[in-house]
Amino acid sequence: MSLSPEQIAEISTARAAQSQTVRPTVPELESLLYQALPVLDHGFVRVIDYMGNDAAIVQAARVSYGRGTKKVSEDRGLIRYLMRHRHTTPFEMCEIKFHVKLPIFVARQWIRHRTASVNEISGRYSILDKEYYIPAPEQLAAQSHDNRQGRGATLQGVEAARVLELLRDDADTCYAHYEDMLNADPEGNPMDPERDGLARELARMNLTLNTYTQWYWKIDLHNLMHFLSLRADGHAQYEIRVYAEEMLKVLKAWVPATFEAFCDYRLGGASFSAKDLDVIKALIAGKPAVQEDSGLSKREWAELMARLGR
Amino acid sequence: MSLSPEQIAEISTARAAQSQTVRPTVPELESLLYQALPVLDHGFVRVIDYMGNDAAIVQAARVSYGRGTKKVSEDRGLIRYLMRHRHTTPFEMCEIKFHVKLPIFVARQWIRHRTASVNEISGRYSILDKEYYIPAPEQLAAQSHDNRQGRGATLQGVEAARVLELLRDDADTCYAHYEDMLNADPEGNPMDPERDGLARELARMNLTLNTYTQWYWKIDLHNLMHFLSLRADGHAQYEIRVYAEEMLKVLKAWVPATFEAFCDYRLGGASFSAKDLDVIKALIAGKPAVQEDSGLSKREWAELMARLGR
Amino acid sequence: MSLSPEQIAEISTARAAQSQTVRPTVPELESLLYQALPVLDHGFVRVIDYMGNDAAIVQAARVSYGRGTKKVSEDRGLIRYLMRHRHTTPFEMCEIKFHVKLPIFVARQWIRHRTASVNEISGRYSILDKEYYIPAPEQLAAQSHDNRQGRGATLQGVEAARVLELLRDDADTCYAHYEDMLNADPEGNPMDPERDGLARELARMNLTLNTYTQWYWKIDLHNLMHFLSLRADGHAQYEIRVYAEEMLKVLKAWVPATFEAFCDYRLGGASFSAKDLDVIKALIAGKPAVQEDSGLSKREWAELMARLGR
Amino acid sequence: MSLSPEQIAEISTARAAQSQTVRPTVPELESLLYQALPVLDHGFVRVIDYMGNDAAIVQAARVSYGRGTKKVSEDRGLIRYLMRHRHTTPFEMCEIKFHVKLPIFVARQWIRHRTASVNEISGRYSILDKEYYIPAPEQLAAQSHDNRQGRGATLQGVEAARVLELLRDDADTCYAHYEDMLNADPEGNPMDPERDGLARELARMNLTLNTYTQWYWKIDLHNLMHFLSLRADGHAQYEIRVYAEEMLKVLKAWVPATFEAFCDYRLGGASFSAKDLDVIKALIAGKPAVQEDSGLSKREWAELMARLGR
Repeated sequence: MSLSPEQIAEISTARAAQSQTVRPTVPELESLLYQALPVLDHGFVRVIDYMGNDAAIVQAARVSYGRGTKKVSEDRGLIRYLMRHRHTTPFEMCEIKFHVKLPIFVARQWIRHRTASVNEISGRYSILDKEYYIPAPEQLAAQSHDNRQGRGATLQGVEAARVLELLRDDADTCYAHYEDMLNADPEGNPMDPERDGLARELARMNLTLNTYTQWYWKIDLHNLMHFLSLRADGHAQYEIRVYAEEMLKVLKAWVPATFEAFCDYRLGGASFSAKDLDVIKALIAGKPAVQEDSGLSKREWAELMARLGR
Repeated sequence: MSLSPEQIAEISTARAAQSQTVRPTVPELESLLYQALPVLDHGFVRVIDYMGNDAAIVQAARVSYGRGTKKVSEDRGLIRYLMRHRHTTPFEMCEIKFHVKLPIFVARQWIRHRTASVNEISGRYSILDKEYYIPAPEQLAAQSHDNRQGRGATLQGVEAARVLELLRDDADTCYAHYEDMLNADPEGNPMDPERDGLARELARMNLTLNTYTQWYWKIDLHNLMHFLSLRADGHAQYEIRVYAEEMLKVLKAWVPATFEAFCDYRLGGASFSAKDLDVIKALIAGKPAVQEDSGLSKREWAELMARLGR
Repeated sequence: MSLSPEQIAEISTARAAQSQTVRPTVPELESLLYQALPVLDHGFVRVIDYMGNDAAIVQAARVSYGRGTKKVSEDRGLIRYLMRHRHTTPFEMCEIKFHVKLPIFVARQWIRHRTASVNEISGRYSILDKEYYIPAPEQLAAQSHDNRQGRGATLQGVEAARVLELLRDDADTCYAHYEDMLNADPEGNPMDPERDGLARELARMNLTLNTYTQWYWKIDLHNLMHFLSLRADGHAQYEIRVYAEEMLKVLKAWVPATFEAFCDYRLGGASFSAKDLDVIKALIAGKPAVQEDSGLSKREWAELMARLGR
Repeated sequence: MSLSPEQIAEISTARAAQSQTVRPTVPELESLLYQALPVLDHGFVRVIDYMGNDAAIVQAARVSYGRGTKKVSEDRGLIRYLMRHRHTTPFEMCEIKFHVKLPIFVARQWIRHRTASVNEISGRYSILDKEYYIPAPEQLAAQSHDNRQGRGATLQGVEAARVLELLRDDADTCYAHYEDMLNADPEGNPMDPERDGLARELARMNLTLNTYTQWYWKIDLHNLMHFLSLRADGHAQYEIRVYAEEMLKVLKAWVPATFEAFCDYRLGGASFSAKDLDVIKALIAGKPAVQEDSGLSKREWAELMARLGR
């Protein structure tokens, strides 16, 4: 991770500015606020602001159920109930804002989550920094042979070294030519006063997809959990999963009861079809169950057995 | 407005609970927090939580424009620029949560704004309070003769008294029968132990549309301004406009620079078509301009002249 | 259901207007198009337009997977795969538009689904028809004793008759006074030329919540299935569930492969938490499993056993 | 533009498959359906499906206004009214689906429009084609000197030739190394059977941002017009504007009355602030108006005068 000296100074200043508020606060999250949590070789996740806590979810749920239900359940049980029955609107009552630095190819996956607000650094206005993602050697995975989108064994030795060299050289070359075409230093001043630089909005097309970008990203808790359930999952690409994993730590600090229910029901849970349920019931009843009679395809059967740990 | 004693006590407790935070705070809004701003005869708007301030908008805009632009404009000018050019995403970086009590027919208009989060009291779970909206005499408007959705002159004397009596009597009767069908006190206990009460989810259909409901409503600043530009407008129905007007006071306390730009560009501004612009340019040039040659219909011409104060 | 003669004529005209198209068409849905499917005593659902079919989902999914996967799976298997793994975006590629007539208290639940487009008849512009929902006797359920939002046994005899009379009388009275205050016939012409009528936007507040309204409602297939999974569910209120059930018939005619997968994975499926899965695995292994050791509350245990049919 | 032979065959097949439908159809758009409209050097826009027409907008608007208004306005006037008063929901009742091939840096701007459905070819599953955008010589603009995001004069001679060579060489090199790291032909078969290829999801990071991608993109008419008003605007980057311009032709074929109103009110129209309006009124009244007394900054004054053609 590389924060600029200005960014480090900004973080110190922001963290020093204590104010009084009558809003709900979460001390565990306050201590993380503004801090850069490092991800990959140059990326980070920073919490910039938040609104609400576990109690705000309960408060919103209770307005729905009205005065008669105040005594019904204590907070943790209610939060588990909401999560189990996918009563999602109370979780929308909390909001969080992140500052994230991430490679462009990761940003392209991330932005597919539409119910969030984003302000990204613009390559039309600004000259992008010379920072790009190079995988750590243990992440240099081969293409999986049996899964079209998966990773297989890690490349070794000469093979791995060659890949790293190609990635590094091409990113370096492309960035050098980007600078050259721009004919500008990072402040936008011409390097060679004799010639015009290519427009920024054009020159950027020469950069490689591992170049880092950054953005402010604001989302409500319900949609954050949807993002995390997909991106902290084992099927997610490693390079986005590591961001999701840092954000899980933030979730735990922010809304611990919700985090616990989320881990139990979403991250650790599973869904089954009607046909799957028939198989499960048969297995529990001690009856034989085989793929051929189940109405499931071979692939569906294999996925079911995997989820049942068989 | 009628807050229950429990609600008044809750507000005091919430306002007394001061915490330290490193988040941006807005003292002018803190002093409004949790307070019920009365609207109509029993309604209110309360700010429950907020996130961000004018500076957060600037901060988000600047990440888009990058380091080179830090000096370009000071904050107020930048906010005016964003508003003028409808660069809306930085305004999404602020969020606010309200608790609102409002008549059901107003709630039906309000909910058409989809980009917000809502938790409403549910008539399936809870027994709704006996509170309904009766217009103040000066709001008892006749149907407009020349505008299908507008209000005309105020009803007077016997006519007005009769309308008020009808509204009051019908709401009273319907509520009394609601209670009777429910066979339950506000806590849900049977009044006549000898018989079953009708299900809440059915009994509620007997209530009139002026019955009050309440909800938590959370929205980002961009979408709040869109809501306010439509609902604080003169074409909005009075009964929703008064809510919007209270929320304008909240906006002013929360993000004063944004509020100023919003008043100038949205509330006080106007849009013109290409044909309108041709007329305006002709008028400025001192040329004669008449509807017949303008390409505008009579109605369009009249609307244009009205916006030009002619 | 009561269609006006104009509406019946419009439907005939629309159904007679055959055109040629190169778009994908679905003959089974074409035969339903514009027809009113009756719901409740005066309501209906009509399909007004549609876009896409099962093949459009497959086509969109295959652009994601690229040329290499054309042979991988046949369509039905791919649609089941998408449903199972909640790859929801291909289902967004189909769209459908309904015309629905429904009681206002049902419309208030329905509108909470935000990712749809709606145009509703406006009580500010129009005079609403004298039509309101009165439950069939077998739907006059008592409040459930053990479920705050549920229905219990059906009211009988005198009790039931009394409820029906109250509902009918109050709706009649409120509507009569609505007309009286408006002082207008359904075309908006004054009944008593000597006096002004109350503005429509005010008079409507006197109507009861079982008054019928109508709207155009347009939604994509993914969000339609989300709506149906919640509203065709046994926990949904009967009065909205019957609409969902008619729409399931539409779904079956429109996208049969998707309908089949939806029934298997959503309507007939179930989700389990990590703790639930531990219990299921123990049961399959023939080990004893009791609530006390499971980490589940009594309620959670009961819900789990119910889903396992025990 | 380069369509593959398979794509050309698919288009012929799709265009030949005429069906009968009772849905509204638009012959002018039918004749465009599936055809690739070329954009940039290798890109295209194709209409894949559509729903609704000008009449569907009017129909949806009329349900809002109810039976009393059937005679009020003829369709064109009503559509102009809806556009002028930003009654946007009836425009949501039409939907269109495109297949678009576009450079990744354009896709990154495009995807910021969140209210659309997208299925993009995935570089995790598929091997991307060797196609990248190289600007035509007349588009090789220098960075603007007075506008941070704009383009200035066109680069000439040696300078231009050098930029084109850098762009072409770097894209070629990066793609060659992408293939090399993948160790796979376009069908995914290994080129060198002795070694493993790098995982697709990793190798793609070496591609440059001018590489072409493609997606299905589905959007309603209201949101399409919002997209076009921003992206067909002179401030939009040339490389996205040319896509918007092709889509304007589609709009004209599909909904001609809406297209006309859109051109008049959105593309050719302008918005003014309250302070702007004061200046306009003064100018029309023949009074002197100068920046210093207007409350406008120099920049705001300049923008106002530009919009007034002064």
